[in-house]
Amino acid sequence: MDNTQPRMRWWGWGEDGNDGPIKPGAKKMLTKNCGWPDGVNNPPVELGAVQLPAAGLPDDARTRFEELLGAEFVRDDHATRVSHAAGRSLPDLLRLRSADLPFAPDVVLYPASHAEVDALLAICAQERIAVVPFGGGTSVVAGIDAFRPGFRSCVCISLARLDQILDIDEESLTATVQAGVFGPDLEEKLQASGFTLGHFPQSFEFSTVGGWVATRSAGQQSTGYGRIDDNVFGLRCSTPSGPVELRSTPATAAGPNPRQVFVGSEGTLGIITQATLRIKRLPETTLPDAWFFPDFHSGAAALREIEQSGLRPDIARLSDLNETAFGLAQLGSDIQRKGLLAFLRARGVTTPCMLVLRYDGRKADAKSRRAGGRAIARKHQGVTMGGAPETQWEKHRFSTPYLRDQLMTEGVIVETMETAAPWSRIESLHDTIKADIEKAMADRGTPALVLCHISHLYTAGCSLYYTVFAQQQVGQEMEQWKTLKTAAGNAMVDNGGTITHHHAAGADHAPWLPRETGELWLRMLRAAKAEVDPEGIMNPGKLMNGPSAL
Amino acid sequence: MDNTQPRMRWWGWGEDGNDGPIKPGAKKMLTKNCGWPDGVNNPPVELGAVQLPAAGLPDDARTRFEELLGAEFVRDDHATRVSHAAGRSLPDLLRLRSADLPFAPDVVLYPASHAEVDALLAICAQERIAVVPFGGGTSVVAGIDAFRPGFRSCVCISLARLDQILDIDEESLTATVQAGVFGPDLEEKLQASGFTLGHFPQSFEFSTVGGWVATRSAGQQSTGYGRIDDNVFGLRCSTPSGPVELRSTPATAAGPNPRQVFVGSEGTLGIITQATLRIKRLPETTLPDAWFFPDFHSGAAALREIEQSGLRPDIARLSDLNETAFGLAQLGSDIQRKGLLAFLRARGVTTPCMLVLRYDGRKADAKSRRAGGRAIARKHQGVTMGGAPETQWEKHRFSTPYLRDQLMTEGVIVETMETAAPWSRIESLHDTIKADIEKAMADRGTPALVLCHISHLYTAGCSLYYTVFAQQQVGQEMEQWKTLKTAAGNAMVDNGGTITHHHAAGADHAPWLPRETGELWLRMLRAAKAEVDPEGIMNPGKLMNGPSAL
Ligand SMILES: Cc1cc2nc3c(=O)[nH]c(=O)nc-3n(C[C@H](O)[C@H](O)[C@H](O)COP(=O)(O)OP(=O)(O)OC[C@H]3O[C@@H](n4cnc5c(N)ncnc54)[C@H](O)[C@@H]3O)c2cc1C
Ligand SMILES: Cc1cc2nc3c(=O)[nH]c(=O)nc-3n(C[C@H](O)[C@H](O)[C@H](O)COP(=O)(O)OP(=O)(O)OC[C@H]3O[C@@H](n4cnc5c(N)ncnc54)[C@H](O)[C@@H]3O)c2cc1C
Repeated sequence: MDNTQPRMRWWGWGEDGNDGPIKPGAKKMLTKNCGWPDGVNNPPVELGAVQLPAAGLPDDARTRFEELLGAEFVRDDHATRVSHAAGRSLPDLLRLRSADLPFAPDVVLYPASHAEVDALLAICAQERIAVVPFGGGTSVVAGIDAFRPGFRSCVCISLARLDQILDIDEESLTATVQAGVFGPDLEEKLQASGFTLGHFPQSFEFSTVGGWVATRSAGQQSTGYGRIDDNVFGLRCSTPSGPVELRSTPATAAGPNPRQVFVGSEGTLGIITQATLRIKRLPETTLPDAWFFPDFHSGAAALREIEQSGLRPDIARLSDLNETAFGLAQLGSDIQRKGLLAFLRARGVTTPCMLVLRYDGRKADAKSRRAGGRAIARKHQGVTMGGAPETQWEKHRFSTPYLRDQLMTEGVIVETMETAAPWSRIESLHDTIKADIEKAMADRGTPALVLCHISHLYTAGCSLYYTVFAQQQVGQEMEQWKTLKTAAGNAMVDNGGTITHHHAAGADHAPWLPRETGELWLRMLRAAKAEVDPEGIMNPGKLMNGPSAL
Repeated sequence: MDNTQPRMRWWGWGEDGNDGPIKPGAKKMLTKNCGWPDGVNNPPVELGAVQLPAAGLPDDARTRFEELLGAEFVRDDHATRVSHAAGRSLPDLLRLRSADLPFAPDVVLYPASHAEVDALLAICAQERIAVVPFGGGTSVVAGIDAFRPGFRSCVCISLARLDQILDIDEESLTATVQAGVFGPDLEEKLQASGFTLGHFPQSFEFSTVGGWVATRSAGQQSTGYGRIDDNVFGLRCSTPSGPVELRSTPATAAGPNPRQVFVGSEGTLGIITQATLRIKRLPETTLPDAWFFPDFHSGAAALREIEQSGLRPDIARLSDLNETAFGLAQLGSDIQRKGLLAFLRARGVTTPCMLVLRYDGRKADAKSRRAGGRAIARKHQGVTMGGAPETQWEKHRFSTPYLRDQLMTEGVIVETMETAAPWSRIESLHDTIKADIEKAMADRGTPALVLCHISHLYTAGCSLYYTVFAQQQVGQEMEQWKTLKTAAGNAMVDNGGTITHHHAAGADHAPWLPRETGELWLRMLRAAKAEVDPEGIMNPGKLMNGPSAL
């Protein structure tokens, strides 16, 4: 496969042919909560109509790039620039579809080796050219937007050709892979040898190992398989001041941990070219389970007890009332849904909150953990329907992002946000976030439908994930987004949550960093960055150097 | 309890009254391998005979300290200075016993609140006074030695009065504690409420939470309960530029992880005054198990399989041939030992390597994990004796350090060293380290006895821990130590290991940091440090600013 060809359609999520209709039940729910913008048909513009900023690459820099990589791998045709100009946040999608792209790289570079990446960064530092590292381009925090504050030129360095799985150490259960490997390619190779990384973010199909490491990503199975930060041992990172190579060590006490500084560095320190990751043997079995609770509170209490009892579910996801209702309306058939609701009503559950779980491992062990989990769910008034709802959820888990594109065509905007906090704060935090979003959006005259789920369990806490729908305010979408983002971000950070559990900081979350970690830590980070990137060319305007106000 | 009174005797390990004799079998083994220095009786000098460097605290600084803390908590009597002058590495002990202490703080300060620590650091920064943070003083890497390069004065800030357990969040399973809490005090309080941190370094009785966090410590149950770096959520650190407060978040993707920079910072960035730690419910049961393998190789293979099969032993420790023989000779009775060896010989095990394990948790679960572990041990030619050897090992686990003091009195030096590496490298790494130590020490004319064990398991690898004995070369002890340390450190770092799995860097391991992580990372660290400590007063001469050659 030629990885330099974009895998995603340029204007939205994933590949063509996956857009399903909005089902009547879901539409009804949206109408009730947000109103429905009747008769809107607002498809994306044509690729040719997209306006890009003028490219400003100096000729001598281009010559040096071409000498290094070959002209074929220095591309600035319209399609290439557009497909590397934006991630997949709501503002990104709004801009892409409206054809007004204020940020785009001048050129996209495709190095094929560590040495080529090193050399590119050295050239860019000499020429003072801003650099945006690019994995799959699925960022939802403006992480790959081609900001160029103070720079005349900005290049995108794609990791697409660093796509090799270099080594599987079956004895140490680690795999050494290049940064540009896409999720499906990695899992295919690992699984063929009987292993898995178990890292399945919802963006799995279109995101890369380097992107995961750079953003401190968490997959949907992180409860069992760990976040990417738990699973990175060795690491290689090219910086403008030269490469940093961290050997693969299971643990060390040799001072502050450099891995945990490069992990999550979002391209601001350098380009991760290679990582050594902890892998696991493919589980003997995976056992699905699903429950419906009478309310969010009892479901959350069950989840907490399951996790803290050491039953280690590998997947665990509890939807609130709204998300449960929306999911049933959008994903299943109407008959299924009505049957289920009647079944639950008969058992006293009138406002169901769905919990899906999966237990992976050796058969006997997974069974006994599931049995333990079931006893706890029952104790907390859960009603079970066996494993089918989990299987159903898994089947659709990579398809829901397509709905966002479809809704935007019909005049409804969708944004997602997430946080994490200790268990003792989770419920009050959730109440505040939901109420603050609803109030802020209602105050704008575009009331929101807010869905939420708990996922990614830890003994000390969990994450909360929000999906928010509202009618699009044509011409004021960006203000609308800022209203939403500000309300949610403030509610999170002012009430003991983090501004992001797995979406990273990028530019969009940067305004909350001082409040979350304090200004002193950001100064430390900036100082550390200045050592590896004295010219400040690496992904300017993001993370520690992001906008100080949204 | 008045924590400002030293818990340890000033010249050696722990408290008086615990020094046992060297048993005949152990002495025989030492004699065979190292020769025995007959008739040596070299006890520590009297406290009064200890020579300290002149104190150089400016009067106005003392006045400011006394105004802040009260005169009672600004102490520079001889006993206080001596008991804060050295850790418990071999060089520390040699210096203490010989009464030639080249480094000692001018004064020891005892703040009782965050605010007092903040204020002390501000004064020290203004007056350009070097600061050594002091927890329990059990450092084995010269972490608390009062170096003062370029400073006329050096103070020790003891955390002894920050000794409160502030909060146990039973819902989130976290405890918020002040940095100066000692191990036993912490566990007593936690266990009274049904919880445990499960952090039991061999130095448990005399070390503090702040010391653990500052050194990235790992306890003997880290395989099950996690290293301290796995268990720190929130953190407060006073720095000369002001406090850093990291909220307690189970996980976050908000950029590089500040926790993992302050954890392991060894007093070079500031003083950790408080930490929020993950705790666990006390296990329903703890099941001991023990095996004897015909060689180190088969034991290591069994351990790896046990860990990688997800059987999660909470304690796991495999001694090599020498350590097994020494342990049997020193800890058990002669009859026990002979009986055991005959029993093993009858089963074909003539060079036994002992493995002790413990499985904690709910009864059924711990039992089934132990059964799984037993099947694997048997497959790898292990011979079992039930749980007794583990129970015996646990009984003695905090007493072995006393032996070192006793041996030094008799003219034998003892040093310990440790590393970690991926499983695929462990055996060859071990062979190299052992051979290099033996060769270097034999070349000096003081052949060594080298004991080793594997402990602290990870799916990707494990740690190797060495105890080395040799006859003391009177008058050349420091060169002897350098020979040993250099041989071991080089063997570790040149063959894929880390210079330290849990002892931290301090001054002694600093020379290997550039080789392990590269100079660029150290430059980043120094730059980050300069933001919080522009005068460079925090623990100078350690870690990123340590000596560039041993
Ligand atoms: C529909 C949807 C669902 C998502 N679900 C999840 C989820 O479940 N969990 C989750 O964690 N995230 C999720 N995300 C966010 C996103 O997919 C992750 O941040 C992902 O890790 C990005 O990977 P990527 O390869 O696409 O990186 P990109 O988007 O290309 O880049 C992300 C950031 O990392 C930098 N970067 C990329 N590669 C490198 C490199 N090799 N070296 C240095 N810097 C680099 C970029 O400069 C940018 O700042 C989702 C996004 C979308 C649109
Ligand atoms: C016999 C023996 C056995 C040992 N066994 C183990 C073991 O099993 N596992 C293990 O991990 N270690 C072990 N150690 C090493 C040592 O006990 C650990 O490093 C321990 O964490 C030190 O804690 P402490 O309170 O004694 O700290 P100290 O020795 O007082 O200080 C250690 C370092 O941390 C700094 N420091 C201390 N407190 C703070 C603070 N509050 N803020 C900032 N910096 C601070 C000091 O400046 C110094 O650099 C052992 C040591 C000995 C002598």
